[in-house]
Amino acid sequence: MIKVGIVGGTGYTGVELLRLLSAHPDAELTAITSRKEDGLPVADMFPSLRGHVDLAFSAPDKVDLKQCDVVFFATPHGVAMAQAPELLAAGVKVIDLAADFRLKDQAVFEKWYKIPHTAPELIEQAVYGLPELNRDAIKGARLIANPGCYPTTMQLGFYPLLKAGLIDATHLIADAKSGVSGAGRKAEIGTLFSESSDNFKAYGVSGHRHTPETSAQLQRFTDQKVGLTFTPHLVPMIRGMHATLYARLTKDVSNDDLQALFENQYKDDEFVDVMPFGSHPETRSTRGANMLRLALHRPEGGDTIVILVVQDNLVKGAAGQAVQCMNLMFGLPEGQGLKHIALLP
Amino acid sequence: MIKVGIVGGTGYTGVELLRLLSAHPDAELTAITSRKEDGLPVADMFPSLRGHVDLAFSAPDKVDLKQCDVVFFATPHGVAMAQAPELLAAGVKVIDLAADFRLKDQAVFEKWYKIPHTAPELIEQAVYGLPELNRDAIKGARLIANPGCYPTTMQLGFYPLLKAGLIDATHLIADAKSGVSGAGRKAEIGTLFSESSDNFKAYGVSGHRHTPETSAQLQRFTDQKVGLTFTPHLVPMIRGMHATLYARLTKDVSNDDLQALFENQYKDDEFVDVMPFGSHPETRSTRGANMLRLALHRPEGGDTIVILVVQDNLVKGAAGQAVQCMNLMFGLPEGQGLKHIALLP
Amino acid sequence: MIKVGIVGGTGYTGVELLRLLSAHPDAELTAITSRKEDGLPVADMFPSLRGHVDLAFSAPDKVDLKQCDVVFFATPHGVAMAQAPELLAAGVKVIDLAADFRLKDQAVFEKWYKIPHTAPELIEQAVYGLPELNRDAIKGARLIANPGCYPTTMQLGFYPLLKAGLIDATHLIADAKSGVSGAGRKAEIGTLFSESSDNFKAYGVSGHRHTPETSAQLQRFTDQKVGLTFTPHLVPMIRGMHATLYARLTKDVSNDDLQALFENQYKDDEFVDVMPFGSHPETRSTRGANMLRLALHRPEGGDTIVILVVQDNLVKGAAGQAVQCMNLMFGLPEGQGLKHIALLP
Amino acid sequence: MIKVGIVGGTGYTGVELLRLLSAHPDAELTAITSRKEDGLPVADMFPSLRGHVDLAFSAPDKVDLKQCDVVFFATPHGVAMAQAPELLAAGVKVIDLAADFRLKDQAVFEKWYKIPHTAPELIEQAVYGLPELNRDAIKGARLIANPGCYPTTMQLGFYPLLKAGLIDATHLIADAKSGVSGAGRKAEIGTLFSESSDNFKAYGVSGHRHTPETSAQLQRFTDQKVGLTFTPHLVPMIRGMHATLYARLTKDVSNDDLQALFENQYKDDEFVDVMPFGSHPETRSTRGANMLRLALHRPEGGDTIVILVVQDNLVKGAAGQAVQCMNLMFGLPEGQGLKHIALLP
Repeated sequence: MIKVGIVGGTGYTGVELLRLLSAHPDAELTAITSRKEDGLPVADMFPSLRGHVDLAFSAPDKVDLKQCDVVFFATPHGVAMAQAPELLAAGVKVIDLAADFRLKDQAVFEKWYKIPHTAPELIEQAVYGLPELNRDAIKGARLIANPGCYPTTMQLGFYPLLKAGLIDATHLIADAKSGVSGAGRKAEIGTLFSESSDNFKAYGVSGHRHTPETSAQLQRFTDQKVGLTFTPHLVPMIRGMHATLYARLTKDVSNDDLQALFENQYKDDEFVDVMPFGSHPETRSTRGANMLRLALHRPEGGDTIVILVVQDNLVKGAAGQAVQCMNLMFGLPEGQGLKHIALLP
Repeated sequence: MIKVGIVGGTGYTGVELLRLLSAHPDAELTAITSRKEDGLPVADMFPSLRGHVDLAFSAPDKVDLKQCDVVFFATPHGVAMAQAPELLAAGVKVIDLAADFRLKDQAVFEKWYKIPHTAPELIEQAVYGLPELNRDAIKGARLIANPGCYPTTMQLGFYPLLKAGLIDATHLIADAKSGVSGAGRKAEIGTLFSESSDNFKAYGVSGHRHTPETSAQLQRFTDQKVGLTFTPHLVPMIRGMHATLYARLTKDVSNDDLQALFENQYKDDEFVDVMPFGSHPETRSTRGANMLRLALHRPEGGDTIVILVVQDNLVKGAAGQAVQCMNLMFGLPEGQGLKHIALLP
Repeated sequence: MIKVGIVGGTGYTGVELLRLLSAHPDAELTAITSRKEDGLPVADMFPSLRGHVDLAFSAPDKVDLKQCDVVFFATPHGVAMAQAPELLAAGVKVIDLAADFRLKDQAVFEKWYKIPHTAPELIEQAVYGLPELNRDAIKGARLIANPGCYPTTMQLGFYPLLKAGLIDATHLIADAKSGVSGAGRKAEIGTLFSESSDNFKAYGVSGHRHTPETSAQLQRFTDQKVGLTFTPHLVPMIRGMHATLYARLTKDVSNDDLQALFENQYKDDEFVDVMPFGSHPETRSTRGANMLRLALHRPEGGDTIVILVVQDNLVKGAAGQAVQCMNLMFGLPEGQGLKHIALLP
Repeated sequence: MIKVGIVGGTGYTGVELLRLLSAHPDAELTAITSRKEDGLPVADMFPSLRGHVDLAFSAPDKVDLKQCDVVFFATPHGVAMAQAPELLAAGVKVIDLAADFRLKDQAVFEKWYKIPHTAPELIEQAVYGLPELNRDAIKGARLIANPGCYPTTMQLGFYPLLKAGLIDATHLIADAKSGVSGAGRKAEIGTLFSESSDNFKAYGVSGHRHTPETSAQLQRFTDQKVGLTFTPHLVPMIRGMHATLYARLTKDVSNDDLQALFENQYKDDEFVDVMPFGSHPETRSTRGANMLRLALHRPEGGDTIVILVVQDNLVKGAAGQAVQCMNLMFGLPEGQGLKHIALLP
């Protein structure tokens, strides 16, 4: 059994890790820390876990996370970089669900996250935890930077086209929509029910942290200079993410060839579902499941290709992807403990 | 492996059965019928099942359900009574999720459901499928009448008090609230998003079919004449049911004794969670899980006791309870394939 | 024109007052105070008001509210009692939408609100602002205690029966459900979208501040000792309140007589709509409107009467009722500026 | 008083017309027809109208619409073209909220709507009812083709840029999102609460009727060949529409100049609100109001301009715009009866 520690288990990615790991056949929840909730049984905060999780939160100084085999950080940005060095030195593997190690360029990180990076020596060895594009590196990793939820959808949607050199990479558009849980479990007015229900809006249109992360990753797959316009929106639903991606085709290619390109790319990826050409994937078809579904469209046969991508932002977009990485790091079947069927309706 | 057939798999209880049974270690989905959708892959209607269910719907005349070990009816009222006799005669066990066999009094059935009963000879042998109150009978049953969702909450909430003779049974009040999925997957104006979202209303207040079902079952446990006022309401949520039960205490009893009464009653029932006295259970703590949670209140220490009961109407209130019955009928552990943790948030 | 001041306009009752008063033909918005938002144009916080309200928030020390004819307090409990004495002394009328003056018994106030009352000398002269039960007193009032949203529904629902002596007043039950806006515009985890959407729960079941307020008011109309069990619930909708009231009839009375009793009681009240016997009022039929609708039921003809009551908690349950009081206090037609039709769908 | 008739008042645009017109100071509701609901009081179907609308639905053959001054068609496509000729001949003005007269090219109409056009002789005289772009023609019109909800957002968003020749018109992208009421009040599974709540999806991506309507209108303002990729999505909210528009700038222009261009264009349009550069308009800021708000963005200062546009699809996107046209046609102030403030929260 893999001994698992979780730092910061009081947020939505934290409770989702608990849901997945407490039912994982090879994982044993060993410790979960929270500075504020020391002593509180986890199931008192999240009654959905009554009968499934017996652990209580511990103050960070009361547990020795170095006894764990792997530690997940479901924390705000900045926490993992502070604690990772000591854990890694002790031989503990680290999976960070925040942004601390997502960007290879330290200056770009510090510009967008507005905090100094305190463990720059680890940036290089950190592996970007997107299994479908990075599987081999993840298998050998000690430190995982779990991708952001938006970047996962954008990369898996654009990747086959970029790699095949079929699109103009300089003017990519990603119009993305997220459920409210993406904003986290924080007391804020903007995400109150009465503010975000029966409402729709964009946010961060002039600049969002997920743009540089995505651009840097996409740049690995093309010689063109990647230019990405990314527009996030807030949808009145709890879970779910939908990215509508637009690119201009630069070569003459049939719809059948486009479809085949995607099907071949992802044929061995059990958590990417290439739906039939012209489908309209729904976010709820992934609710609670570690699954990303996508479909291609070619409106009126023109030179614009539209890729529709959906996932559950808390699963394939966060906690599920992190467990997928853990499985790879520990030599388990990639899908171990991740076979949940989406909850529909 | 238990060979399973499903009649009428296009509704919400149908797709929920598919979710549970396709992941059940001892069940094998063998046939699923739909008159209208013959030939359509189930996963085309419910994309959440892509990769998990390969079956297609079959017209009823194209499959021999008598090859199954058990057949679930997730159909409108009246279908099971038409097909059950032949299946039972062939040795197939039958679990009806509709109302055909819930009422022992044929006249009462015909009054409330406004159709003649076509298999009255089976009414007597049908077993009411509420495991917590009827476990032994279910183990030996060939024909199960799966309880309605509302009746499950009312019975498990009132039962310990009735049995102990602590309340006035003649004036029970059940103010119950259901998510919209309880109305089924039918094209109707009243349950359109634009009609039932951001709205709340009662319905059927002057009389509802679940009143006679519940009254008849509760009557088994008391010598008083049961009088029940049941008021259902529609909540703008997909899944979830909350019953707020009121009864007048007729004996002097402490809160500790009341709590102990419930805890003792349900201590061996893995799918009933008696929460601490004064708790406020939330429906989402059962979302997608086969679990009923309840808590007791005694406002201002008076003689009125309030019991709060929650469940997922499609799981413990329908498909999950049906699988729980199947497990008992086939000698499996009662919780086999039913350990899902609720999806929160 | 009535010069109007608003203290504390950043909450939901505040913005609702602004919506109603900015379109009121006899009111002129003169000042709106907020300690935190000094200088911010109101329409920057609430873009729905762009083009309708030009005022900016002012720090309390920068405006002289004594220049107003009336001041509304849309503040937390405790603010009105601190400022009302000076305003009243200057001849300004005061309408408090919080609880400071709702309870005539100072000790009960201090027990439930856990703050000392700093203006006990005003309690006696404060008039409870429920026009349908208190119209004449309101006309002559200088200080209005605007009722809570729940108490409005309970009082207007029970009142005709109590006054006519038809029910057992010692065991009234009010099972009430509120939209989330009733919790106010405060940064709290419990009312985040991801916590309260797709969910239903009760709260405060063992004791809620609106119980003593309602009991005390109802006691005015009966010689029996009023006993009230009040159970509030949170509904995943923004606006709307539904009370399901239960009482036991103590006299033999026909449904027609019951219906006539209510129709006669409210025939001159333009903001109370007695619907046909057996109707199911929906909250959305009052969304945005100063209207309370109710309907009577007598399940299976028994001795339990069920009264269904709906309103918009922010309008007839708060800001609309306050403006209705203002109209009465200033000799205007009671419905002036309050004729909005509910927004449906 | 303008005598108003409504054909087909049982849908969402119908009830919205009733809400607006029953409170309009210069309009008198004279007749409302429905084949199925003959004799039913309108307020029985829509209880929000109780006390405001006394009319009952009439079968079409029981009323003489030729006695009206203006008749609104809130009907499915095809009805207005059948009845308009007779009404126009009798001197009645006609405003069609459906698509019958939106497309000047009969063949294009018949291709997209799949019905033959039965009044082609009226197509030429029909005036496209978008006041901000067509005010003078509307003033003199006898027959109005009220624009679709999506086309209104796209045209008002792209128009200033097209007219100024600042963008590449051949590759416009409109990623649009609509509340569920846009699908109408029809009994269909796809828009049930349990299907469309807590969910997000695109639809009609490969081709939608609003594309040719919008393209044809936009073509009027540019010599370039308009190429439009339009992607509609369904948002789990009742009312509201958000269009996220993308275009590539072909000239060097500052953000200030872009902002000034829009502000100048719409400075005399009381129902178009150009918000400060970089704002994020929310749909709820227009809920129930005849208002379209928009804001400009220039992500990272590149050559892609993003225009965010919001409106209430039932008001500025349908019924409100129709009343705005009526006001113009009858020489009334354009905003008569249309000053409602949006309902927030």
